[in-house]
Formats: sequence, structure tokens, C-alpha cells
Amino acid sequence: MSGPIRASFQGARGAFSEEAGRKLLGDDLELLPCERFLDMFEALAAGKVDYAVAPIENTLAGSVYENYDHLLNFKLPIIAETRIRIVHNLIARPEAEFADITRAISHPVALGQCIEFFKQHREIRAESFYDTGGSVQAVMEGDDRTIAAIASSTAAELYGAKILVKSIEDNSENFTRFYLLAREAPAEPPAGEGELKTSIAFSTANVPGALYKCMAAFALRDVSLTKIESRPLRGRPWEYLFYLDFLGAPSERRCENALNHLAEMTELLAVLGTYRQAV
Amino acid sequence: MSGPIRASFQGARGAFSEEAGRKLLGDDLELLPCERFLDMFEALAAGKVDYAVAPIENTLAGSVYENYDHLLNFKLPIIAETRIRIVHNLIARPEAEFADITRAISHPVALGQCIEFFKQHREIRAESFYDTGGSVQAVMEGDDRTIAAIASSTAAELYGAKILVKSIEDNSENFTRFYLLAREAPAEPPAGEGELKTSIAFSTANVPGALYKCMAAFALRDVSLTKIESRPLRGRPWEYLFYLDFLGAPSERRCENALNHLAEMTELLAVLGTYRQAV
Repeated sequence: MSGPIRASFQGARGAFSEEAGRKLLGDDLELLPCERFLDMFEALAAGKVDYAVAPIENTLAGSVYENYDHLLNFKLPIIAETRIRIVHNLIARPEAEFADITRAISHPVALGQCIEFFKQHREIRAESFYDTGGSVQAVMEGDDRTIAAIASSTAAELYGAKILVKSIEDNSENFTRFYLLAREAPAEPPAGEGELKTSIAFSTANVPGALYKCMAAFALRDVSLTKIESRPLRGRPWEYLFYLDFLGAPSERRCENALNHLAEMTELLAVLGTYRQAV
Repeated sequence: MSGPIRASFQGARGAFSEEAGRKLLGDDLELLPCERFLDMFEALAAGKVDYAVAPIENTLAGSVYENYDHLLNFKLPIIAETRIRIVHNLIARPEAEFADITRAISHPVALGQCIEFFKQHREIRAESFYDTGGSVQAVMEGDDRTIAAIASSTAAELYGAKILVKSIEDNSENFTRFYLLAREAPAEPPAGEGELKTSIAFSTANVPGALYKCMAAFALRDVSLTKIESRPLRGRPWEYLFYLDFLGAPSERRCENALNHLAEMTELLAVLGTYRQAV
């Protein structure tokens, strides 16, 4: 391959996903911003890009549930992960002052992380927008100095906007974890810092003790779980699919044994990727 | 108490939550529609209503994660549950014909359940709105016959709107489960049909095998779990809180033992309610 690396992400330029993409892939990037998560997965599946950068979990808002569904449907392997500290800023047109602002637009998750700010400033109305970076773009393309955006300082810089208030998020323990997805998994687990980690999806028979027995496959071999998430099984009301992350790789004997043991008890079992845990 | 029962719900009149409220409480209801889930919980906590009707899980979209957070924060007990079959219809002004429609507004979850319809009708653009019932109200209050709403037939009837296409949802196995919340739990588990079920929340120490050991408290006593959900612990990145439903009541010996055993291993343990499982 020659030329810059191509990567798709959801949002407009200046989104937190772009920051994650640069941390994962470096700065020599040709970026494909997508309106929806689905578009970002489709672009990778169709070979329009080499990688996709998918947020999977935020420490305040929880999992990005839609992306869990896409991970299983597209089977595009996870090859790396990273974590980004999320800092939200109130951003407006260069001529705007704080007293001018009556509306603030941003992604609903970002708005939900600035609840204290809106409680203290009841004169500013929060309004949903499809993206954080895109909200800055919209403010700059319009000519209304009473509208602000909530986004990263990178987005403010990129669009030439002004930061009126820095760091307006409720809780500073605000991080988002992102996956780097490719079309094919590498033959060997990746080299680098951080322990190896593997993500899988499985569904159990709907019988008492099923999940307990599945957990046993790992616990009995001292394989540590770092996350478990449940999602509904489409077409089978009140039954669930589980997404699970464990430390280790299927190429290690005890992890291979755990997966084989798990396979005895599951209807569906898919390995979504082995990668280095972000440090 | 005299007079009608008062209940809060999220959405506008005609929302699926209103249908759930009638199924749980009967028709002699004084309803308080709320814009946000938070408002609905606050109205009950403040004594403005006797009950709140909260959607907790949809068989296609997954859990209503925000309401899980509110259940634990408000500690308003769950006293009953019900399930509603979700049927989405394309609804417009009485003078509108299908060929007129260029935009369809509804709650994002409803839009996401009609993906096949939008693929087949690319001339109709889907747009997010805060509520299904509210989208019909907005269409009827405006005067634009090119805009349609996606909502229940009850909402169409309530606002005098016209159903253009019935049942446009992708998958007919589309149900939502709702909780009925009160300010105080009854002294005795409720009489009625359906097995008793209990909802709890807990957090474990962040050590290997922690979740496995918690599951053991139930599995070793043959207590069946019907659902488990994880949510991030605010302020403690990459640690989780679990919401779990099991069949039985804390007043039964084996369930009491299971809860005592669980308490040995958990940092936080809260019983959110015991109620009859919807049948």
C-alpha cells in the first residue's frame, strides 16, 4: 500500500473519534467522516477505507450499544483499542460573548454529560445534534451568535471557533474507549505494550444457571473478565446475547480451553478480535 | 384516597407508555405526560403523582439504560410490570395521501425499528423527534401534509390523524416491558398471576472471578436469573454496576440466603422491588 492510511469514523471533522483515530493510526490519515455508525462499518466492509474507528464505551454514559450490534453483524475484527479523555467546551462564533448564548447544540450524550452546567445556566437551552464536531461546524456555517456548540478544543480550533467556557463536563472521570477495526485480523496477536485482550460474543440456551456455567469456563481457569454486556436476541423476545472481554488470547492454552469449554454450552460463539489493552 | 389515580409517564398523550399505564392501572387515570424520564421520576418522588410508568426494555432495541440509572438513584420501588406489543404505523394529516409524504418524524428508537420501510421508500426521510405520540401531535398542530409521524394506532385516534400504512416495523417480535413504580413498596409481595420476580442492583470488588462468584449465590440455590445488565460506575472508570432480575422474592428462604451470600461479596446491594412477572 502507498499513500495515506484511510479510516472511517462517525461524526464530522473534529469529533472525538477523529482524535482516537490519530492516536491509533498517526497523523498521515485520509479521513472519511460518516453520518451514522452503520455507514462507517459499511465503508470498511466495502473497502472504501482500510480501518474504522468505533467508540464502544464511555465511563459515564455506558456502552455504545449500536456498535456492539454492528461488531457481530459485520464480523470486522477488532485489532486495537485506545482511550480518550473527554473534555467538553462551550464553543461559539468568534464575535460571540457568553452573555449572548441562549442555545447550545451537541450530541445527546455530550449534553447529558454537562447537566450541572445547564442547571446553573437555565438561560441556555440544550438541543440535540448528530455530532459534537458537527455542532461546531453548524455554528460556524450559520451567522447566529446566540448559538453555541459543545465539543472538543480540537473541533474549536479546526473550525476557527471561540471557546467561551472550558471543561463544562460534570465529572472529570470521563473517558471513551475506541476500537480500531480492520477487514482482516493479523495472523499473530499484535506486539506492543498492554496485556492481550480478546472480545467475544455468545448466546446461551435459555436454562437456569446458563450464564453461571459460561462464567465458570473462565473462572475455573483464572481467566480475568474485564467487561460483560448483554443485548437482546432479535426475534427471540426476552433472550439475550452476551458480549464479553477477557484478558488473554485464544492462542494461549488456558484461553483456548476456556473457549472450547464455553462452546459446549453456547448456541452462538464468535471471536470479535484479539488486541492489546489500552494503557 | 379518592378521585382518579395519578400517574406520570414520558412522552405525549398516545405514547406506548400511556397504553402500558392503562394496562397496569385501568382507565380511571389522571395522566401527567413528561418530556424527560427524569421529570417522570421527579414527579413521583415529589408526590405530584401516585405512580410512574417506566419502559425498561425493548426486545429489539435493548434496555432503556437511562431508566436503570434512575431506578437506583431514586430508589422508587418497582411494584408491577407489563409487556406491550409495539406496532408502528405511518400516520399523517387527514387530507394527506401516501404519495405526499417526504419526511417521517418519530422517536429515534421507533425510527430504528422501521429500517426496512425506509430502505424501500427512499423518498421519505426519517427525522428524530422526542416521542412517538408527540410526533402525531406535532403533525396535527402543523399544516404540512408532506410530514408523517410514526406511532401507535391509539395516538392516531387520539389526535384525529389518518393511518397511511399499518405495521411498518421490521420485526413483529417487538415488545416493550414497563415497570410500575410507587413511592413505597407493599408490605407483602403482590397477589396475582405470574411468578414473583425481584430486581436488584449490585457492584462487586474489581477482582478476578467476582461476577462468577456473585452468579454462584443464585445458581447454587437454583434461583433462576431472567436478566442481567451492566452499567458503568460513575467516577470509577472501567468498573461496573450490575442490574439483575431473578425469579422469587426475598421473603422466600432460598432467595433470602442467596441475597445474604451475595451481600458478602458486594460493595453495594439494593433491592429495587418484588413484583409479579408479566405473563
